[in-house]
Amino acid sequence: MRTIYLDHNATTPIDDGVLKAMLPYLREQFGNPSSNHGLGRRAHDAVEQARAEVASLIGARADEIVFTSGGTEASNIAIRGAASADPGRRAVVTTQIEHPATDASCNLLESSGHQVTRIRPRPDGVTDPEEMAAAIDARTAVVTIIHAQNEIGTIQPIAEIAEAARRHGALVHADAAQSLGKIAFTVDGLGVDLLSIAGHKLYAPKGIGALYVRRGIHVASVLRGAGQESGRRPGTENVAGIVALGEACRIAALHLKNGTAPMAALTASLLRHLKRLVPGLICVGEHAPRLPNTLNVLFPGVSGRKLLEVCPPVLASNGSACHADSEEPSAILLALGIPRDQALGTVRLSLGRSTTPQDAKDAATHLAAAWRALRQPAVAAE
Amino acid sequence: MRTIYLDHNATTPIDDGVLKAMLPYLREQFGNPSSNHGLGRRAHDAVEQARAEVASLIGARADEIVFTSGGTEASNIAIRGAASADPGRRAVVTTQIEHPATDASCNLLESSGHQVTRIRPRPDGVTDPEEMAAAIDARTAVVTIIHAQNEIGTIQPIAEIAEAARRHGALVHADAAQSLGKIAFTVDGLGVDLLSIAGHKLYAPKGIGALYVRRGIHVASVLRGAGQESGRRPGTENVAGIVALGEACRIAALHLKNGTAPMAALTASLLRHLKRLVPGLICVGEHAPRLPNTLNVLFPGVSGRKLLEVCPPVLASNGSACHADSEEPSAILLALGIPRDQALGTVRLSLGRSTTPQDAKDAATHLAAAWRALRQPAVAAE
Repeated sequence: MRTIYLDHNATTPIDDGVLKAMLPYLREQFGNPSSNHGLGRRAHDAVEQARAEVASLIGARADEIVFTSGGTEASNIAIRGAASADPGRRAVVTTQIEHPATDASCNLLESSGHQVTRIRPRPDGVTDPEEMAAAIDARTAVVTIIHAQNEIGTIQPIAEIAEAARRHGALVHADAAQSLGKIAFTVDGLGVDLLSIAGHKLYAPKGIGALYVRRGIHVASVLRGAGQESGRRPGTENVAGIVALGEACRIAALHLKNGTAPMAALTASLLRHLKRLVPGLICVGEHAPRLPNTLNVLFPGVSGRKLLEVCPPVLASNGSACHADSEEPSAILLALGIPRDQALGTVRLSLGRSTTPQDAKDAATHLAAAWRALRQPAVAAE
Repeated sequence: MRTIYLDHNATTPIDDGVLKAMLPYLREQFGNPSSNHGLGRRAHDAVEQARAEVASLIGARADEIVFTSGGTEASNIAIRGAASADPGRRAVVTTQIEHPATDASCNLLESSGHQVTRIRPRPDGVTDPEEMAAAIDARTAVVTIIHAQNEIGTIQPIAEIAEAARRHGALVHADAAQSLGKIAFTVDGLGVDLLSIAGHKLYAPKGIGALYVRRGIHVASVLRGAGQESGRRPGTENVAGIVALGEACRIAALHLKNGTAPMAALTASLLRHLKRLVPGLICVGEHAPRLPNTLNVLFPGVSGRKLLEVCPPVLASNGSACHADSEEPSAILLALGIPRDQALGTVRLSLGRSTTPQDAKDAATHLAAAWRALRQPAVAAE
């Protein structure tokens, strides 16, 4: 059975060039970057070259990049660090459509006395920047917001929100785990002070990420230990993972030079096929600014989970992979005001670099057939 | 120039079998273990198989293993988690010869009101278990101790200390980053509740580690986010790294079946060569229980740092790689009562699976020649 992988927002395959770049650091170049001898120095140099590549993709300087074990750690350091940077500021402003790393970090802050305001998005999956701005004041330590929502792909108006935060002297953190490499942006363009990066959404391996920290801002590491990463993140560096992330960023920059139109067209064609075959299908946030690769569609009258179970050729998800065990409807969709029964019909289809027009067509055909089978089990069984 | 790598305590090369085992998870098996489809399930199964392998090496059950980004994160979760598990217990007992991850975690606890007692080791690098036991009482939340000291290789009497801790109802954490795979032990034999593991000291890659948590004990993750690792460590699993750690543990068990005598003999031969060629050379903790692969030797009258600089064929260190940038004498050696000028002559030589008798002989010859050149620069230059 030929499978069609449409779960790139859960994780991407590793790019061949990325694997090629990292392999020497899994073989002969195994030194500890903290070692003074040649093997150590070569590992150190590779880490610094990767740091420059990551910085370059987001318009930052190399010394503003801290390598972490992934997006979750990056967001923990950013949000918890920024919230405690100024003891006079004890409030956090965020949204109701954040990744669990942000949610849980905010919950932890709340339990230690911070006031957390969670703005509800508009029904199209985009946060109203004015509503967000109105929640920010002189007590706000940090505004933390997901750049591109992982389940629905909607892009949040970070630049406008960041401007409001700056007026009040609050720091701004963006979770760019899903957006990086899919759309072009710079940290200055967004106006953020902190930005989370996850390697495995970007054709690099799992277990590596990075945090952008604007020069002049100090956020303490959540983990404590030795002085790696200029004292900003302890633990022996994941050299091969870091090299992989650097190369993945370099390759992402090349892809972004071609613009996002080809991917957006492919995704639009998948939606067209689906709409033609599945009457009543809804695309969440259809007309909102969205990632070029992401569709969140609601299949009418069926469970999206069951739909994927009976559609083995299509590898996709019913929301964030981080929630895949749950039988509950997505909290993100509920926050948008989507009724519970509709929300249960959700399927997230996230395309990638290797997705072809034929994949889009075939995936729609398979999904529609599965939908019909679920709707009319008796007929389908004949 | 042929180099001789004697820095295995800083980091090990990746075992060929380990690399082979992890490669599929860097290529076609790239699924997110939280995804419900086949690719995700295969990743999930691989993680669980690795969990069983890690557990097996230390005589634990699979559900007692939590994968982390490395030893530093494991020790952070263990120490900070155990210290806050019982609000009625606000004291920590540790030693003066801990890894920075333990030191810094204890410092953090101290700054938040915990009382931390740091026992000074005996001059041979071993902590007196009775002295340690005397510091433990009903207020002690956790006793945290390094199993094999990373710079000098001395093995701490954890079983005796753990017994004292149990009598007072305190939890026991061992940092086994350096000992695992070098000597055989089980968590029950040591009597510990928590145990830190670092992949890259064990012929697995950097960026992966594990924490053993005895069944029935709950320690909160330091990082916050989604529910991976049964809610004990959030963030998408580093699948390839986890598979690598599992295979490294399986291979380590095979090596340990042969006993530690061959490695100990090789290390002893290196020391014999050195003593013959370098009069006045001291081996720290020479007669103490030590890792079979580790020598910490003090070269008389020279800086160990300079010695390694002028001895490029030997890749070794002057203590923990985590401290390699420092010009200060090792705090560990000072804690043992070694005078500052002697301590500056330190060279740590840590052997590995690929070290040969010829390597030991050649390394001694190179180091002795470098030592003579530093001692008598005029003569050497003639």
